[in-house]
Amino acid sequence: MSDFKFTPLVQSLPATVPFVGPETQERDRGAAFSARLGANESVFGPSPRAVEAMRVAAAEIWQYADPTCHDLREALTAHYNVPSASVMVGEGIDGILGNLVRLLIAQGDAVVTSNGAYPTFNYHVAGFGGALHKVDYAGDHEDLGALLSRAREVGAKLIYVANPDNPMGSWHPGRDIEAALDDIPEGALLVLDEAYVELGPEEAAPKIAPDDPRVLRLRTFSKAYGMAGARIGYGIGAPDLIKAFDKIRNHFGVNRVAQAGAVAALEDRAWLAHVQQEVATSRVRLERIAADNGLTALPSATNFVTMDCGLDGAFARAVLTALLDQGVFVRMPFVAPQDRCIRVGCGRPGDMDLVAETLPVALQRARTLESA
Amino acid sequence: MSDFKFTPLVQSLPATVPFVGPETQERDRGAAFSARLGANESVFGPSPRAVEAMRVAAAEIWQYADPTCHDLREALTAHYNVPSASVMVGEGIDGILGNLVRLLIAQGDAVVTSNGAYPTFNYHVAGFGGALHKVDYAGDHEDLGALLSRAREVGAKLIYVANPDNPMGSWHPGRDIEAALDDIPEGALLVLDEAYVELGPEEAAPKIAPDDPRVLRLRTFSKAYGMAGARIGYGIGAPDLIKAFDKIRNHFGVNRVAQAGAVAALEDRAWLAHVQQEVATSRVRLERIAADNGLTALPSATNFVTMDCGLDGAFARAVLTALLDQGVFVRMPFVAPQDRCIRVGCGRPGDMDLVAETLPVALQRARTLESA
Repeated sequence: MSDFKFTPLVQSLPATVPFVGPETQERDRGAAFSARLGANESVFGPSPRAVEAMRVAAAEIWQYADPTCHDLREALTAHYNVPSASVMVGEGIDGILGNLVRLLIAQGDAVVTSNGAYPTFNYHVAGFGGALHKVDYAGDHEDLGALLSRAREVGAKLIYVANPDNPMGSWHPGRDIEAALDDIPEGALLVLDEAYVELGPEEAAPKIAPDDPRVLRLRTFSKAYGMAGARIGYGIGAPDLIKAFDKIRNHFGVNRVAQAGAVAALEDRAWLAHVQQEVATSRVRLERIAADNGLTALPSATNFVTMDCGLDGAFARAVLTALLDQGVFVRMPFVAPQDRCIRVGCGRPGDMDLVAETLPVALQRARTLESA
Repeated sequence: MSDFKFTPLVQSLPATVPFVGPETQERDRGAAFSARLGANESVFGPSPRAVEAMRVAAAEIWQYADPTCHDLREALTAHYNVPSASVMVGEGIDGILGNLVRLLIAQGDAVVTSNGAYPTFNYHVAGFGGALHKVDYAGDHEDLGALLSRAREVGAKLIYVANPDNPMGSWHPGRDIEAALDDIPEGALLVLDEAYVELGPEEAAPKIAPDDPRVLRLRTFSKAYGMAGARIGYGIGAPDLIKAFDKIRNHFGVNRVAQAGAVAALEDRAWLAHVQQEVATSRVRLERIAADNGLTALPSATNFVTMDCGLDGAFARAVLTALLDQGVFVRMPFVAPQDRCIRVGCGRPGDMDLVAETLPVALQRARTLESA
C-alpha cells in the first residue's frame, strides 16, 4: 500500500481514530448541533478570570511558553500542599497517558484496563506495542479486584482505573482505591485517572501520599475547569517517575495560553464551586428527564448522566442516532452490556429543555425500529 | 536509582533537556531580561486579527478543538493550492518531528543530520532509539552533498535539513534542494524543516510536488507568524505519509486557540508582509551593529543574525554571558567551529538599541577574560 518504511510496530497498527469529533459529525450532517453534550465538556465554561488570563496571553503568544510550566507547578504545589518534585504538567491527560505508556511499555508488555473504559488509553497502549488485557465491569463499576487479579496473572506494568468512571459515571469510595494500592502486584503502576474528581463526592478521592510509587494520579483542566480546548492536565506521583517524563516529553509542548489560563482557573475557587453547583442541578434535571421517559439514570459522580435505555446496544444506538438527528450531540458506551446506555452531558437549562423535548421522540423512533 | 520498570530504551536515555527556557534563566538571575532575542521568536507579534481570533477562542475553550484541524487544513490547502490529503497539522514542528521519528525509526535505525543542527530533532531520534549520524557543516551551510553521501553509507531512513538554517541563518537555493531530492537514497526520507521559509529570499523555497514521497516539508506559525507559544505547525507530503500520523498522534492535541489563531494569521497577508519588512530592517541594523564592533554578521535568511565573534567558542561564550548579564537574552551555536558565533534575534528599535549598547561592553569583558 505504501512505499514508506514505517517501523514494524507502526505497520501493525490500525488506521483507527479513537473519537470522531462533533465538528466532523456536524459537517457530515450539514448542520450544527443545537446542544453539545457528548464530549463531557463543561458547557458552563471556564472561570472568567481564566478567560481574561488567556486573552492577555493571546497577545503575548509570540513567546514560547515556559517549558518547565513553573508557575502552574508552583500553583498546584500550593493548592495540594505537595512537593513540586511530585508534580508534572502535560498536554491534557491524553498527552500524559501517551508519554506514560512510552516510558513503561515496550512491545509485548502487559497492561490491564476495563473492557469499555477510556479508548484513548488503549490507543496509546496499542501505539507502543503493549499487550492489552481487559477485565469486565462489575455491574456499572470498574472491578478493582478483578483488575488487580488480572494484573497479577499477566504481570502487568500498568493498571488503568478511572475514578470517577467514564462512561458510566460511577465511582469507588477513596478508601477502596487506597485498599487496592496495597494489593498492587510488584512491578505494576496504578494509573489513576481522576479527570472528574472535582465533580464527584469528596469521599471518591483517595488519600494518597504524593510520592507513593505505586500510583500516578492524573487530573485535568478539561472537565470541571472548563478548558478542554486548551490541552492541559497534570500528574502527581513519585519524583523518580515525574522526572522521567523529562527524558521524552515535548518540552515546549504545553501552550502559553493554557498555562496562563490554568493558573487563573486554579485560583478561582468560587467559579469551581459555581460549576459544581450547576453540574449538580443539571444532574438532578437529567435524572428527572430519564424518569419521565421510563429510563434509569445511573448515579453520577461526573458532569454527565448515563441513562440505561433498558434494552440492548442496538436499541440504545437507535436512541442515540435519533437524538443526533434532532441536533443533540451525545455519545454512548462502546461495549456490551454498558452499551444499553446513552451518556448525556450536563448543561444549561436550555440544553436540558432540548433533551427533555427530543428524548421522547428519540425513544419513540427507536421503539418503532425495534418493533419493525 | 529508581524502582520503576522503565523500558530498556528509556533507561538508556540521558535526563538532558534540549533547551533551557529564558524564564528559568530569569528566575536563576533574579531579574527579567530587558530584551528577549534568544529563541528566534517574533517580537513583532502575531497578526492583530489572529490575536482577536484567539481572544474569541479563549471564551469557547470549554470545547475540545476539532481533532482533524479541518478549518486550518482547508485554509492551508487553499493558501498553497495543494490537496488536503497532503496536509497535516501538529503541535508545532517539535511535535511533528517527534511523531515522524516514531513512525519511521525503530531502535538502531540510522538518521543523518548536521553536527550542530536542531537539537530537538536529535532529542526525538535518541528518544526512539535511532542511531544518529552527524555530518559537519561546510563553512556556515549544511552540506547537502555530505548529508546524502552519509545517508547512503549508513542506510539512513531520515535526513534532516533545515532551509533556511538555524543556528547559522544560511540557506541553500531551492534548486539545490530540488537537485538533492534526485540523489536521496532509496528508503530515505528528507525532513525539510522550513520554519524560517517566510523570512528568507523567495529563491530559498524549492518547488516540490505536494505528494512527492521523498520529502516531508515542515512549516510553522511559531516564527514569521509570531505564534510560538500556541504550538502549531504543519507538514506537507505524500498522502500515505500524512495519513500515517493518524495512527499515533494525539488526535485532540492541537489546542483550540492555536487553530483559530492560525487560520486568522494565514489570512492576514498584510501582517506577514509587515513582519517581513520589520525583520529585514532589523537584520540591516544588526549587521551594522556587528560591523561597528568589528564582528562579521553572517548573511541571514531568518529572523536572527549570527555574528562571528572572530575567535573560539570560549570567547563567544564569554560574550554571550556578558550579554545575558546585561539583560539581553541571546543564544549561540553549540558546536565548534560554529560556536565562534553568537545568535541575535531581530527586534524592535528599542531591542536593537539595547544590543548596540551592551555588545561593546560584552566584547570588552570577554577580551579582558581572554587576556587574563
